[in-house]
Amino acid sequence: MNPKIERLIKQFARLPRLGARAGQRIVLSLLQDKTGRAENLANALLDAAATIRPCPRCGVLTDADAGLCEFCRDASRANGQLCVVRDLADVWTLEKSAVFHGRYHILGGLISGASGTVPEDLNILTLPERIKSECITEVIFALPNTVEGKTTQHYVISVVGDVPNVRFSELASGVPLGGDLDYLDDGTLSLAFDGRRGV
Amino acid sequence: MNPKIERLIKQFARLPRLGARAGQRIVLSLLQDKTGRAENLANALLDAAATIRPCPRCGVLTDADAGLCEFCRDASRANGQLCVVRDLADVWTLEKSAVFHGRYHILGGLISGASGTVPEDLNILTLPERIKSECITEVIFALPNTVEGKTTQHYVISVVGDVPNVRFSELASGVPLGGDLDYLDDGTLSLAFDGRRGV
Repeated sequence: MNPKIERLIKQFARLPRLGARAGQRIVLSLLQDKTGRAENLANALLDAAATIRPCPRCGVLTDADAGLCEFCRDASRANGQLCVVRDLADVWTLEKSAVFHGRYHILGGLISGASGTVPEDLNILTLPERIKSECITEVIFALPNTVEGKTTQHYVISVVGDVPNVRFSELASGVPLGGDLDYLDDGTLSLAFDGRRGV
Repeated sequence: MNPKIERLIKQFARLPRLGARAGQRIVLSLLQDKTGRAENLANALLDAAATIRPCPRCGVLTDADAGLCEFCRDASRANGQLCVVRDLADVWTLEKSAVFHGRYHILGGLISGASGTVPEDLNILTLPERIKSECITEVIFALPNTVEGKTTQHYVISVVGDVPNVRFSELASGVPLGGDLDYLDDGTLSLAFDGRRGV
């Protein structure tokens, strides 16, 4: 195989959840396209890589020129609610569902022995200052419902400490909408029983 | 979402067999990477798009500077065998299996009413000249075992016509290696019966 094509395939193959076959398919389709799709993609990628930076306040990727991100600049989102998430993909998911209209705080990962992520790797220490300066009244944890997620949540709460008039909350655990009990794992079932509500 | 990021995600999402979620995942991983992976990928893509062209003889993608592709330049491959395939991915598959050591001829598609591909869209008319000038003695069809593949094969044979000392062959049909009869479709089973061999 031509070495340039081979190198390009390898670079695509290393992208998350792709692989050698997907890389081949993508490179073939791009190099055989006559409408300039390869150049357009490459130029858009170069432009984004040069100008997109994490928001210095919340961590959402945004235009470096803009300073703060679209959420932090939007005054209507200063409603006192701050949603703590693991990464930007979670922000996008929450935005798509339109259930939350406050501001975000991206940790950039979870405390984890397995991956060796320690609290210092995460964007936690700026949180107490944000809570004060943005008059936050509720910190909502929307972290994965896993050991790592809960560990991180406990750690963040211990760092923030007791702030008067600020309450902490987390997303409810239980049976997903349309969820069939037959297909639920024991952990979810146990959480759903513990959190049962009167009807 | 930031418009630059949104546009980039859309461009990745349109690549074959990706989609919105895969696009998001890829763009996030590229823009959050601090080792220059985004720039490297973009530059490799620009370089390939600017310099890679189909070989004027067989259609394999190759450096434009090199003239003919690595197969057509390799004298040891002038063994009289010419393998007719649909596209470059098929060449790569055959090369990986190392079952064939002659030259290739890429049609660039198959005759198909469904996709509206007519013979004029394909690289067929140069074939008689290649057979003569490269002293081909066997034309091996390695096309998909489908109606379109067989239609195209018949058409190509009719275009090449009767050339003395040239034989046409096609890949054998039948039960794949490790294939369980239980999981075989009727068409394959019928081909395997028709092609049964004495043991």
